[in-house]
Amino acid sequence: MNSSTLQASFERVRSNKSFELFVVSVIIASALLVGVKTYEIAPSVRQLLVWLDWLITFIFLAEITIRFIAEPNKRRFFHNGWNLFDTLVVLISLIPIDNSDMALVARLVRVFRVLRMISIVPELRMLLASLLKALPQLGYVILLMFIIFYIYAAVGATLFESINPTLWGDIAISMLTLFRVMTFEDWTDVMYETMAVYPASWIYYLSFIFFTAFAFLNMVIGIVVNVMNAENEKLLKAEAEEQHEPTLKDVHEKLVRLERLIERQGR
Amino acid sequence: MNSSTLQASFERVRSNKSFELFVVSVIIASALLVGVKTYEIAPSVRQLLVWLDWLITFIFLAEITIRFIAEPNKRRFFHNGWNLFDTLVVLISLIPIDNSDMALVARLVRVFRVLRMISIVPELRMLLASLLKALPQLGYVILLMFIIFYIYAAVGATLFESINPTLWGDIAISMLTLFRVMTFEDWTDVMYETMAVYPASWIYYLSFIFFTAFAFLNMVIGIVVNVMNAENEKLLKAEAEEQHEPTLKDVHEKLVRLERLIERQGR
Amino acid sequence: MNSSTLQASFERVRSNKSFELFVVSVIIASALLVGVKTYEIAPSVRQLLVWLDWLITFIFLAEITIRFIAEPNKRRFFHNGWNLFDTLVVLISLIPIDNSDMALVARLVRVFRVLRMISIVPELRMLLASLLKALPQLGYVILLMFIIFYIYAAVGATLFESINPTLWGDIAISMLTLFRVMTFEDWTDVMYETMAVYPASWIYYLSFIFFTAFAFLNMVIGIVVNVMNAENEKLLKAEAEEQHEPTLKDVHEKLVRLERLIERQGR
Amino acid sequence: MNSSTLQASFERVRSNKSFELFVVSVIIASALLVGVKTYEIAPSVRQLLVWLDWLITFIFLAEITIRFIAEPNKRRFFHNGWNLFDTLVVLISLIPIDNSDMALVARLVRVFRVLRMISIVPELRMLLASLLKALPQLGYVILLMFIIFYIYAAVGATLFESINPTLWGDIAISMLTLFRVMTFEDWTDVMYETMAVYPASWIYYLSFIFFTAFAFLNMVIGIVVNVMNAENEKLLKAEAEEQHEPTLKDVHEKLVRLERLIERQGR
Repeated sequence: MNSSTLQASFERVRSNKSFELFVVSVIIASALLVGVKTYEIAPSVRQLLVWLDWLITFIFLAEITIRFIAEPNKRRFFHNGWNLFDTLVVLISLIPIDNSDMALVARLVRVFRVLRMISIVPELRMLLASLLKALPQLGYVILLMFIIFYIYAAVGATLFESINPTLWGDIAISMLTLFRVMTFEDWTDVMYETMAVYPASWIYYLSFIFFTAFAFLNMVIGIVVNVMNAENEKLLKAEAEEQHEPTLKDVHEKLVRLERLIERQGR
Repeated sequence: MNSSTLQASFERVRSNKSFELFVVSVIIASALLVGVKTYEIAPSVRQLLVWLDWLITFIFLAEITIRFIAEPNKRRFFHNGWNLFDTLVVLISLIPIDNSDMALVARLVRVFRVLRMISIVPELRMLLASLLKALPQLGYVILLMFIIFYIYAAVGATLFESINPTLWGDIAISMLTLFRVMTFEDWTDVMYETMAVYPASWIYYLSFIFFTAFAFLNMVIGIVVNVMNAENEKLLKAEAEEQHEPTLKDVHEKLVRLERLIERQGR
Repeated sequence: MNSSTLQASFERVRSNKSFELFVVSVIIASALLVGVKTYEIAPSVRQLLVWLDWLITFIFLAEITIRFIAEPNKRRFFHNGWNLFDTLVVLISLIPIDNSDMALVARLVRVFRVLRMISIVPELRMLLASLLKALPQLGYVILLMFIIFYIYAAVGATLFESINPTLWGDIAISMLTLFRVMTFEDWTDVMYETMAVYPASWIYYLSFIFFTAFAFLNMVIGIVVNVMNAENEKLLKAEAEEQHEPTLKDVHEKLVRLERLIERQGR
Repeated sequence: MNSSTLQASFERVRSNKSFELFVVSVIIASALLVGVKTYEIAPSVRQLLVWLDWLITFIFLAEITIRFIAEPNKRRFFHNGWNLFDTLVVLISLIPIDNSDMALVARLVRVFRVLRMISIVPELRMLLASLLKALPQLGYVILLMFIIFYIYAAVGATLFESINPTLWGDIAISMLTLFRVMTFEDWTDVMYETMAVYPASWIYYLSFIFFTAFAFLNMVIGIVVNVMNAENEKLLKAEAEEQHEPTLKDVHEKLVRLERLIERQGR
């Protein structure tokens, strides 16, 4: 049996509907396992969970091996970010852990196996891709918002540090406090505290809220406009392709031909 | 009097405008009754309320009987979800209750009779249907959001359980805590508590807020785009039907006919 | 001097630009007066404020008298809601008050004189009218939301009254508590309290939040769609009027005439 | 070397890409310096920071001098708001400060140097300009919202001052309290306090929330509609320019010419 026929037969396995369903159900099982482990468990059941965990790890290993062999072009396999992610998560799961400090890390790696749900369901993968595609268009708005945060945090850390170092100790802590103010989380407690020393400091908070709310609003609208324009273009293209209706251009060309016809007949 | 004429005469009653108004006012009365019962009531009035309650139950029973007899095709009556709901609520109200434990359940069933308002007013029924129609289109966004919640809850329950078991005891409690964080409800209290042990845990909260806010935003925009496109299509169709205006297609066909006419004359 | 020439000369006064500016500045003065009165004031200044208040009242009285005499059709004057509002506010201000209980009411009436700003600035009047115009279209969504609130409040008052009568005492208090939950204001405190007795009561709160958020979202989108469609129609009309561009109908009619012309020549 | 050739050679420096990059990196360095100063710093490092600060100030001074000399029309230089802002910030940084009271002001001025990031990056400058352009269109909505705030604050300061002077002491404090209510920040605490004296005061809070939420919603929609219309117009213009496609007008003109041609041939 040569490597080419092996690849072809594995490709048939990979494209098999029941193989896909089996993998999805194993991912769901691994997700449930992650959830179950957060509860108090009897030691006898705990041993069962460890075995189940190894079983899932080996099924994942087998699945990725199948997909790797099924790939005609081995190099392209790792060009796909999701394949890389799947392989990494499975390989890290394989490392045997004795040290109790590392046990926590091992449990966290198993949590990320739930993300395989996104890599296996194409609709989720597309959804995530469309979310990420919207991000760069918002780049400058995010930069502007970061500048607003940075300036206000610098002013806050300069003026209010002596009042409450827990909230305004340095520029990083101040930015966290400002994020809290932006979410309206007990922001008046923060304000009343500084207003006891600087009675006019409400200007600081209100102007910050207005600037960030306004910038945030523009970000939201930016996304809406982008999504809607993209949606509209798709609709228009789909319509044009479906209906084969004459366009203004067709009508115009028809008229040009008519004119020539009449001129020829007139001669 | 045979069953067919009975059905026809009951259908006339059902379609009667004053019958409809009477049923609506009885439903409003039953809603008020439900509200009144939450106040402290003198025992003498309480007896009156019990009688009123039975009266309303029997009026509802009579109304559904009329609608059932008025229906020409008896089987189709229960294919309608609202008819089924109305019948169930009325039948359960008929069960006599002595046990005090069941009295609470009986009171709750009477609360659901207020929902009959939706089943009887066609505009509300249509509104609810349009709300429900938007849900499946959002299916994958909801699934993605659930995965985000699940992963963050698993990480939270793993890392923060020892800090505060009331908030991070198991994966279900952690998801509730994360929902609280998403609504910005005292989320900084939750964060400051874990930051005392893991100073970098602000990354956990901020990334969670960004992911869920971003996903939520996309859900909202998804609905907006869907609703607007549907609205636009309705408008366009209505316009086209109302005005009988010539389309580009009409113009194009006219030109084709003109061309043939000129060619024939040229011959 | 007869009544007709009197009316005409008063109409000239009313339409005078400086008269309008004077009234606006008196309204601003009355608004400032209302604000100043909320501060601690020395008794000497207080007397001055009382005199200023009477001065403003008499200027308002004079202004409304001028506008009334300037109106050619006296009956139509009171058909305008804003004129009625202006007259009422000024007349109530004229009632002399000795009783200290009524002094509070008198002060509140003076607050409503600030609303005259809306009645005098046409742009604000139009803005308010457009806000009110959007309300009836949302009628059924508001009704649906009220039904959701009513049902949840009835359930809450039935189940949770014994846990905390301050929050769930009767259906009215419960609706206020639910409004608080909808604004996410310390809603987890309310939830944790009832979860101590009914551990599954988180379902009650989460489902309520989902329903109201979803209904609210639809209201918002309803307004957006309405406003945008209205805006679009305005734009299209304005374009069509400005440019006198040929429509598809014009092109079609032109073609029909051409066809007749060619047929006539062919004969 | 005369002034004209000097100007030309400085203009070449200004337009140089590496000059621009250098200035951006100096601005980033000055921003980092501002951030570093909010941390506890060893005295030895502190001296280094002071030197760095002077270095940055002099680089900024040199840069503005270059840009000023490079400008052919010296008067137009200060017509640009950003040039004025840059010059002011740098000049104030030059003032030597001994007094410790002024040291705080000097630190704050250095914070505003971070804003130079906006003046130097054209995309950020355009973004800010588009944000500011949206403001005046919202003028009347903001005025209406201010009137709502003012009236409610006057009523609140009149009725609730005796209950809690910290929240309702005068009209300015009341407006701040109302802003807090609008952000839903512990608004029920404010309400329950006044409801203990005036049980019906929930009407005050709920009506205020509805009015401001409704007005705010209209502001948001106003921005969305404006931005989308502007975006659409841009798209339409770009399309029309790119594709040189025939318009309805072209078709109509073509038909008019055809008609004349046929009439001439018929004669």
